[in-house]
Amino acid sequence: MKNFSEWFHNILEEAEIIDSRYPIKGMSVWLPRGFQIRKYTLNAINELVEKDHDEVLFPMLIPETQLSKEGETVKGFEEEVYWVTKGGKNDLNERLALRPTSETSIYPMFSLWIRSHMDLPVKVFQTVSTFRYETKHTRPLIRVREITTFHETHTAHSTPEEAEEEVQEGIRIYKEFFDKLGIGYSICRRPEWDKFPGSLYTTAFDAIMPDGKTLQIGTVHNLGQKFAQTYDIQFENDEGEHEYVNQVCYGVSDRVVAALIAAHGDEKGLQLPPVVAPEQVIIIPIIFKEKEDIVLNFTDNLEKILKDNGIRVKQDKRDMRPGKKYYEWEKRGVPIRIEVGPRDIENNNIVLIRRDTGKKEFIEYDENTIVDVVKECMDNITKDMKEASNKFQEEKTFFVTKPEQIKKTINKKGGIVTCNWCGEIDCGKEMEDKFDIDVLGTQEAELEDDATCINCGKKANHKVLVSKTY
Amino acid sequence: MKNFSEWFHNILEEAEIIDSRYPIKGMSVWLPRGFQIRKYTLNAINELVEKDHDEVLFPMLIPETQLSKEGETVKGFEEEVYWVTKGGKNDLNERLALRPTSETSIYPMFSLWIRSHMDLPVKVFQTVSTFRYETKHTRPLIRVREITTFHETHTAHSTPEEAEEEVQEGIRIYKEFFDKLGIGYSICRRPEWDKFPGSLYTTAFDAIMPDGKTLQIGTVHNLGQKFAQTYDIQFENDEGEHEYVNQVCYGVSDRVVAALIAAHGDEKGLQLPPVVAPEQVIIIPIIFKEKEDIVLNFTDNLEKILKDNGIRVKQDKRDMRPGKKYYEWEKRGVPIRIEVGPRDIENNNIVLIRRDTGKKEFIEYDENTIVDVVKECMDNITKDMKEASNKFQEEKTFFVTKPEQIKKTINKKGGIVTCNWCGEIDCGKEMEDKFDIDVLGTQEAELEDDATCINCGKKANHKVLVSKTY
Repeated sequence: MKNFSEWFHNILEEAEIIDSRYPIKGMSVWLPRGFQIRKYTLNAINELVEKDHDEVLFPMLIPETQLSKEGETVKGFEEEVYWVTKGGKNDLNERLALRPTSETSIYPMFSLWIRSHMDLPVKVFQTVSTFRYETKHTRPLIRVREITTFHETHTAHSTPEEAEEEVQEGIRIYKEFFDKLGIGYSICRRPEWDKFPGSLYTTAFDAIMPDGKTLQIGTVHNLGQKFAQTYDIQFENDEGEHEYVNQVCYGVSDRVVAALIAAHGDEKGLQLPPVVAPEQVIIIPIIFKEKEDIVLNFTDNLEKILKDNGIRVKQDKRDMRPGKKYYEWEKRGVPIRIEVGPRDIENNNIVLIRRDTGKKEFIEYDENTIVDVVKECMDNITKDMKEASNKFQEEKTFFVTKPEQIKKTINKKGGIVTCNWCGEIDCGKEMEDKFDIDVLGTQEAELEDDATCINCGKKANHKVLVSKTY
Repeated sequence: MKNFSEWFHNILEEAEIIDSRYPIKGMSVWLPRGFQIRKYTLNAINELVEKDHDEVLFPMLIPETQLSKEGETVKGFEEEVYWVTKGGKNDLNERLALRPTSETSIYPMFSLWIRSHMDLPVKVFQTVSTFRYETKHTRPLIRVREITTFHETHTAHSTPEEAEEEVQEGIRIYKEFFDKLGIGYSICRRPEWDKFPGSLYTTAFDAIMPDGKTLQIGTVHNLGQKFAQTYDIQFENDEGEHEYVNQVCYGVSDRVVAALIAAHGDEKGLQLPPVVAPEQVIIIPIIFKEKEDIVLNFTDNLEKILKDNGIRVKQDKRDMRPGKKYYEWEKRGVPIRIEVGPRDIENNNIVLIRRDTGKKEFIEYDENTIVDVVKECMDNITKDMKEASNKFQEEKTFFVTKPEQIKKTINKKGGIVTCNWCGEIDCGKEMEDKFDIDVLGTQEAELEDDATCINCGKKANHKVLVSKTY
């Protein structure tokens, strides 16, 4: 892929994901095909989160007094908040913010809901639109002004230990989610100057894009008691004393769809993992005159069998050249194509083509086993796509030991550079300026006793990840 | 139910549907149980609409120039629009409206999507939040400032006949939807002064609430070519000429959940039709000392069998009096309660109690038939709830012939009064003032040749419905 940015822009249009011609910069329309992919992506995360969290829905507007109560949060967002100031022709008594993020709308309600340790833990999630008045260059699904798919989980616990367990739970859920979608990622703890405002610390997932830059695709924040203090979320412990709760929140967004498109797409178009594909199988009947009935009887029956067994299948009977159909469905990323012509039926064969490998396989057709064959093929595709994406992420991650290698490696090879680091804020910020990169954050690692910081030369106690970022 | 308004307010809180303590008037939080009911309600309508319409998602904000292009629409909403005027600390170049309804956001895109008759029909739907700066008294789910569940369908067709067919399709879909939920309704064509601004005509569904007032729960609008002209939505017909499309839109909202709560609730609490119940069956093991294992083995197995067969079932094993559990699950409206005690197991019985009738039935227990027994019971509940609600709607609808009966009937019995009417706008508006009612609209009916208008005495050619409304 020569020009990822251009390819990405085109594929959104050609595969009918998003229409970005909506007349507000940074706000787009989800088209029917895109909406289906978004829906199955949400299903995949909901399935994991709702096992142990309850879905809720909070209002979209936040009163200014409530938003600005938490000083650090409002500071982190004040340049980016859209304000509603008028209702009809009247000026509102108080300005209302379009939520930039939902802590300040949710936590005042937590303070009403939580009275005693019996009410804990509280574990809720919601999928909503959030808004950012972006002044930077916008890009559909990646940097937008309306994040239409903000999937956020918010919890409150009686002890810091339970909160820490919830952080691990959030990380585990996101790992499983990204693995399902076959998106490779790196996990690290964001540096102090890039953590969520008001949190103790932020753990983030970054995926390397085809152009070598990284995209943040998920974050998990340990909020400690900061918000609990601001919004007065207290509980009575079993000794009758009042304590502040310990909180965690985590979120993913539209960017997951961007990452999944970027991770698997190629010059032919999209490649969708079966779990989110609107059609998992496309059947193309190869129709010749006089044999039409035989073929269509066969493919109608095949379609029915697959559908009855929960496989999302579609048959393309349009009157056009098969080659044109192949081209179109490849562009749309359908994982499996099945071709059936008169000779195949005579030979009791069908032809199965994988979108990811392009491999053509002749399958002996048996009504009783075809469902298993297709399901096994989907499982293999899922596995192979995940491995390919993980491999890309690994191969694009480079350990370096000399400062001059940082910029050189990033510019030449892209991806993530890891190195030893002292962990000092000033040193980290200096690195960002000096090497023209962003510090993604740190990973736990056993460093050698004499390891030194790549930048300042002091004793190193962290492994740090840096990259160019979206 | 003595005081419906108070009952409704309390039940939303007690059955954990909505928390209306959010600090903006007219905006509330969907609690976990309420969210589930909302979700299953949406599933029920989506199942019907998505057979022949594609789901999409449009941005929440609309530029002022675009909103005000359609004169009648903006006039209908201008008092009620929330305006975003600031982004961060900057004044925006153009004010952005929080969508009060989506025609003005969707149709400019239709104009880009539609080129030729080959592109038609376009049939899309979305579920979104819409906003109204209500100055009237707000009421959760009924009159709100954020309509969090606006389910709207928008279509474009090449001929007026096809548009009319789509109107009928919309009506058919809503009938089936309300029937599924067991909500009784009347259908009529809104009078000229109460149709959707800019439409040819509006067909509406009204449900009679327990206090006798009617609640509009769904509308279907034939938009004709008005919006097509405003937003320049043209297609090339097969003779190469350019024509404007013919449009239809229809919508339902949070009010459906309000209506379903109101239609079936009683002094004990909610009554949920199985299709939207978060739990369709609640199992209460009656535990005595020493027999605990026997009972729990049995109920665990029963729970598993029902769950494996797609029934939403929950077991309440909490250590509290069974009576208290009954009280709680009745309040929450679970359609079926199953009680199992040690003696029941000895007798190979289970006890099944319907929430709607309160009827207790002893069922001979058989693992192989229990799923059918429960499913049949759910079907009966659905049928009986629908019939009860339809009966209420019928019994609360009164045909009158004398003007003085209108106000008297409405004040004494509530509900809908029908009468003969001339169809003149001035006469209709006069009736509204004179009798202190709202004209809901007209139904097709064969009137006798000498039928006269109940108000002005001129020749009647319509059957009109009037009521007090929410």
